[in-house]
Amino acid sequence: MELTILGCNAATPRKNAQTTAQLLEIKGQMILIDCGEGTQIQLRKLGVKFARIQHIFISHLHGDHFYGLIGLISTFRLLGRTADLHVYGPKGIKEIITLQLKLANSWTDYALYFHELEGEASTLVLDHEKFTVQTLPLDHRVYTNGYLFREKEGPRRINKEALTHHKVSIADMENLKSGKDVYTEDGELIKNDQLTFAPVAPKSYAFCSDTAYKPDLASLIEGVDILYHESTFLDHHQDLAQKTKHSTAAEAAKIAATAGVKQLILGHFSSRYPDLNEFIVQANAHFEPVHLAEDGKKFKWD
Amino acid sequence: MELTILGCNAATPRKNAQTTAQLLEIKGQMILIDCGEGTQIQLRKLGVKFARIQHIFISHLHGDHFYGLIGLISTFRLLGRTADLHVYGPKGIKEIITLQLKLANSWTDYALYFHELEGEASTLVLDHEKFTVQTLPLDHRVYTNGYLFREKEGPRRINKEALTHHKVSIADMENLKSGKDVYTEDGELIKNDQLTFAPVAPKSYAFCSDTAYKPDLASLIEGVDILYHESTFLDHHQDLAQKTKHSTAAEAAKIAATAGVKQLILGHFSSRYPDLNEFIVQANAHFEPVHLAEDGKKFKWD
Repeated sequence: MELTILGCNAATPRKNAQTTAQLLEIKGQMILIDCGEGTQIQLRKLGVKFARIQHIFISHLHGDHFYGLIGLISTFRLLGRTADLHVYGPKGIKEIITLQLKLANSWTDYALYFHELEGEASTLVLDHEKFTVQTLPLDHRVYTNGYLFREKEGPRRINKEALTHHKVSIADMENLKSGKDVYTEDGELIKNDQLTFAPVAPKSYAFCSDTAYKPDLASLIEGVDILYHESTFLDHHQDLAQKTKHSTAAEAAKIAATAGVKQLILGHFSSRYPDLNEFIVQANAHFEPVHLAEDGKKFKWD
Repeated sequence: MELTILGCNAATPRKNAQTTAQLLEIKGQMILIDCGEGTQIQLRKLGVKFARIQHIFISHLHGDHFYGLIGLISTFRLLGRTADLHVYGPKGIKEIITLQLKLANSWTDYALYFHELEGEASTLVLDHEKFTVQTLPLDHRVYTNGYLFREKEGPRRINKEALTHHKVSIADMENLKSGKDVYTEDGELIKNDQLTFAPVAPKSYAFCSDTAYKPDLASLIEGVDILYHESTFLDHHQDLAQKTKHSTAAEAAKIAATAGVKQLILGHFSSRYPDLNEFIVQANAHFEPVHLAEDGKKFKWD
């Protein structure tokens, strides 16, 4: 898994600060999470091959999270895309996109699927060969979901050193990887765990933007490797956070602590703060380690 | 009048090339013409005060000419705009914008007026105190209008030298500016043209994008000071120009020559051409002077 922040500014794009969009790579699959205005330009700057993006997850229908979607869909068409595209987002997103395509007389030549969401409970929305995606219902001024991405468990890993002591046929390698016991060429039964290590631990990523402080979120994201949680405000703007249904850095960190996640990334900063370091300070009172999102920054899983 | 090119790339925005948007200043009024994705960022880079823009003219509903509009309208709201905003564009534009505002539960706090166009004849769409705007019906794959902006004639200019020879009261200065004859304090009637010069010649600007070669356009823009005419292609892609209903540099220049305009700006270049100089060469066979649009470039009227 690798996460690239394409934009993390709240509300409106600025000269050097894009609105929310993230690119998540899971086992070679490219996933776009939210798509603020100008996301296609950010993707070009990073040299991302557009056709590799086959799934787009939109959290909610505020402009700073999806105004770049119609442009991206149109550009895919202009570049001659043939691969299917799946868009997940709140009910209404299909009407917005198709109305614009209709009025431009520009239907896509590729298959475009909308998966509209309106449920209030966490739901599995994608069961891909390599990963799953589950909604994380959030509490914002309009219907909003975060998303939890979990890799599926891969094959067991061959213990090459142990293998040198037993005559195991090449044909049995796949059996070993899938967890089966095998017979050696001498007819001896060897237990799988004598010849393999456990699979690489599946990685997980929870994306939560935008939301008021929502303590019951923690149980849905227990133990995830990396949590991105919005933190639009600092403590002294707690009133604004409540009024606009956003979170403070401290609240994001409390969620991270309760959920026992491994790392926390903060983002969706209000542009009123010239120095973002205070977000780390206030979050660290409740949780460590905390990172700040930043346009173009990459996060890798260990 | 002053024109700033915010973007002039065809079809899709690139790393360093925005799609169509132009800012036209007429006697202190700021007018936005087309609004490709990312226009609000271009405006920020130029330091334009957003509230000064009260009129937006959209040529057609292809994404590279209006995908930035919803973001700009939303940002105006977030910045606490109170000034009215008037949007002119093809029928359908109101539905696109209001649907998105509705789903975001984000109505504007300022008055937002849509002036939807569907006529096929050139029409006066705005009669402002300082200027007029008239549609220029174009020939594209969807309903498209260019726009002709004309300053209104200003006051006659006082001939200060001539004035020294006559005793004219201060109170008569406005009469002189409005073209009236006046009596001197000695009771002598002086003809207006003895004491004034003609007003500064009103300036004009014609914006024509996107369109197939449309010779009858010339009669509508006869003698304008500056014509912006799209030239997506060069001569050897004439077939593509016809197929996609765009123009070549030579065709744009023929329109300029027939209309007897003073200057021609070419823009809306296909990104297939690494060197744009050939656009000038091919246009110069029919018309001079020719300028190339370029993001951030300003054009001033003499």
